[in-house]
Amino acid sequence: MKTIIIGGSATGMGVAAKLKRLDKNSEIIVIQDKDYVSLGACGIPYFVGHNFENPETLIARKIEKFEESGISVLSKTKVESIDFDNKVILFKNEKISYDNLVIAVGAKPIVPDIKNIDAKNIFTVNSKEDGIIIKNTITDNSKVLIIGSGLIGLEMVENIKHATKAKISIIEKADRVLKNLFDKEFTDLVENEIIKQGINLCKENEVIEFIKDSNNKVCAAKTIKGEIIECDVVILSIGVLPNTHFLKDSKLELEKNGAIKINEYCETNIPNVYAGGDCCSSLSYLYKNTRTFYLATVANKQAKIIANNINQNKSSKFVGALGTTIIRFFDLELARTGENRMFIEMNNIQTKEILIKDKDHTNYLSGQEDLWLRIIIDLKTKEIINAQMIGKNKSVLRIYGLVGLIWAKTKVDEALEQIDLPYSPPFSRTTDIIHIALSKLT
Amino acid sequence: MKTIIIGGSATGMGVAAKLKRLDKNSEIIVIQDKDYVSLGACGIPYFVGHNFENPETLIARKIEKFEESGISVLSKTKVESIDFDNKVILFKNEKISYDNLVIAVGAKPIVPDIKNIDAKNIFTVNSKEDGIIIKNTITDNSKVLIIGSGLIGLEMVENIKHATKAKISIIEKADRVLKNLFDKEFTDLVENEIIKQGINLCKENEVIEFIKDSNNKVCAAKTIKGEIIECDVVILSIGVLPNTHFLKDSKLELEKNGAIKINEYCETNIPNVYAGGDCCSSLSYLYKNTRTFYLATVANKQAKIIANNINQNKSSKFVGALGTTIIRFFDLELARTGENRMFIEMNNIQTKEILIKDKDHTNYLSGQEDLWLRIIIDLKTKEIINAQMIGKNKSVLRIYGLVGLIWAKTKVDEALEQIDLPYSPPFSRTTDIIHIALSKLT
Repeated sequence: MKTIIIGGSATGMGVAAKLKRLDKNSEIIVIQDKDYVSLGACGIPYFVGHNFENPETLIARKIEKFEESGISVLSKTKVESIDFDNKVILFKNEKISYDNLVIAVGAKPIVPDIKNIDAKNIFTVNSKEDGIIIKNTITDNSKVLIIGSGLIGLEMVENIKHATKAKISIIEKADRVLKNLFDKEFTDLVENEIIKQGINLCKENEVIEFIKDSNNKVCAAKTIKGEIIECDVVILSIGVLPNTHFLKDSKLELEKNGAIKINEYCETNIPNVYAGGDCCSSLSYLYKNTRTFYLATVANKQAKIIANNINQNKSSKFVGALGTTIIRFFDLELARTGENRMFIEMNNIQTKEILIKDKDHTNYLSGQEDLWLRIIIDLKTKEIINAQMIGKNKSVLRIYGLVGLIWAKTKVDEALEQIDLPYSPPFSRTTDIIHIALSKLT
Repeated sequence: MKTIIIGGSATGMGVAAKLKRLDKNSEIIVIQDKDYVSLGACGIPYFVGHNFENPETLIARKIEKFEESGISVLSKTKVESIDFDNKVILFKNEKISYDNLVIAVGAKPIVPDIKNIDAKNIFTVNSKEDGIIIKNTITDNSKVLIIGSGLIGLEMVENIKHATKAKISIIEKADRVLKNLFDKEFTDLVENEIIKQGINLCKENEVIEFIKDSNNKVCAAKTIKGEIIECDVVILSIGVLPNTHFLKDSKLELEKNGAIKINEYCETNIPNVYAGGDCCSSLSYLYKNTRTFYLATVANKQAKIIANNINQNKSSKFVGALGTTIIRFFDLELARTGENRMFIEMNNIQTKEILIKDKDHTNYLSGQEDLWLRIIIDLKTKEIINAQMIGKNKSVLRIYGLVGLIWAKTKVDEALEQIDLPYSPPFSRTTDIIHIALSKLT
């Protein structure tokens, strides 16, 4: 049995490693466009922020290690097309046949079609090379413009601010940061922190043109409102899209955003072709709708499922994701889980919700901080469908509890109100914020 | 409707406040032996440790505040007996009748019957006065002997060590500290920390006699092994027992340990007599056995249930507790939840268990620390019945997730393995320790 895996990141290498463990004799070939595999892309902002200096730290496992275990890696190889009928992959005028194919090509950053987007010093945050060049370019004298204030954008802001004295501006198209993930009460606190850190935040604004100098280097950005923002480094963190351009005209069914359609076994519409991770649309746990999650955690889980199913047909099912997310932004920490507002509103789900502002632990121990929690329940099922937290000093790790309750589809009722959460003065109050919220929802 | 509440701590004042909110016209009288109510006894070690200086901080709500809301408090009043047939409380040659009675007298520290136990400077950790006198007595020159290494004992050790240069010894009867709460792998780490802190730990040892000086002050303890341990302050933290001595010969049904038997409505065997908190035996959530929990969180929940049931008969049920506990000990943090080893073994519950040693977050961010997790599942039900963690920097707040899963009685299977826990580099690894543990249990 010969398995070809296209893509050497979380899903691809996860499938390769697991499949080799399940069946030592399986032939596994990974085709990867870079000269490395297993990039921990989530670490790039922290590498840029000088939390560590060796870019090889971003590589979870080297190609040689995989090859030692009998997995072949064709690195620096870009797949051109796939002949699904004849089960053949085409690249560099070569062909390679497969019994099973795994498409795990991930996502790529959106690069907007703006005048002079090809100027020097305009970067995305996607590869090891991106991390290295951004880190080498930004100095204390830099004027950095971050375009987009999602997770990656804000992680870049935090890290650049920590490591340098660079002047930082953020441009965000929406009326607030992190809009798709958190409600306004939460993002207001993040925006206060942005301002407190001396960062220039321009919301409801867009870059329509970059201006470059005689060296072809970006020197300013012109906005839709007519302002000129001086900048010598630009970070594009608008978002990502499935990296499936080469599959556009194939028989493989794709979503409108280019995501590969898969079923719960991570099978595509074509027999023996599996897909997983950021290049797919995946099951949402609660309402069984589909969505592209772009989360390493989802990629890891789907890798395991694909390997199981290649090894033994339809033996593993992906049960869905909640889009659980956690982020540190300077002292602030935010966490969220569950269905998002847009879906809830578009589907007219009748909800009850509560926002609690409390403290993370007892008043008589130092370091007591604010802690906010929103819980949304589905009025029909009485189940929690969304939770959002903001706090400091890891108090938002309480999100583990809410993930547990959502996962178990526990009804919010008087029994749940009695959930036996831990209490001692350095960690909590006798009535935890989760208890307060649940008591107001029953 | 006249409700008498005996005891002015978490359960008693909780019932009073909630009942008054439910029914403004209800007549509520609290009988309390101290001249204050609402003591946050969990704060005493932190007061002794100079985390705050005003002992009034230990009082969550003053008597005047309760009286403003129409609740009467008879302070400095000790109930002598109860005439259940005639629904009358007797004290100070007075009588007072009731329609409903709530017994919420809590627990009191065990004071062992040892020679010279009445010497000066031998203290328990129970009341505001205990806290004040311990704090005023211990100086940098003190030689403190802590008897018993449960939660209170270790919290006292940590706080005394932080606040003073006192020499500290611990005597523990068992072969390890925190034995009833954590397995050996966990308590070994706590014992290493005790030694690292320069504290003298004597296990499998007992004090059989105190030696006092001419001022009747303790100056040493003689152990069962014949050693003489010099000490000028002794803290008794052996444990507590229900404070129900005055009920011993009454019609009220008690457990062997003196705990009042209650049903799920917090009703005793006598009509219109309720009880809750540390003076009762309560339902254990998982196997519906009963146990005395001595936890403020249980007391708080039972207060609410009692008030509901007095207001409207049998309207609220206590569904049980897990004995969830969390403790900080210097840099170490421990958390546990679920049924204890002794019960599991005594009832021959067939289990599968796993111990994972991992890290709390990504290796490339500073401050990465060890994190340990044990999960025990019931092989018959596949449900998690016990979880224990030890770590640093709040990583053990993951216990919220395990409490959620236990509470929901989620089966450990391939679907649960996919639980969507949060990941970002400062908080976790892409495969969380909980995922690792679950994957080894399915």
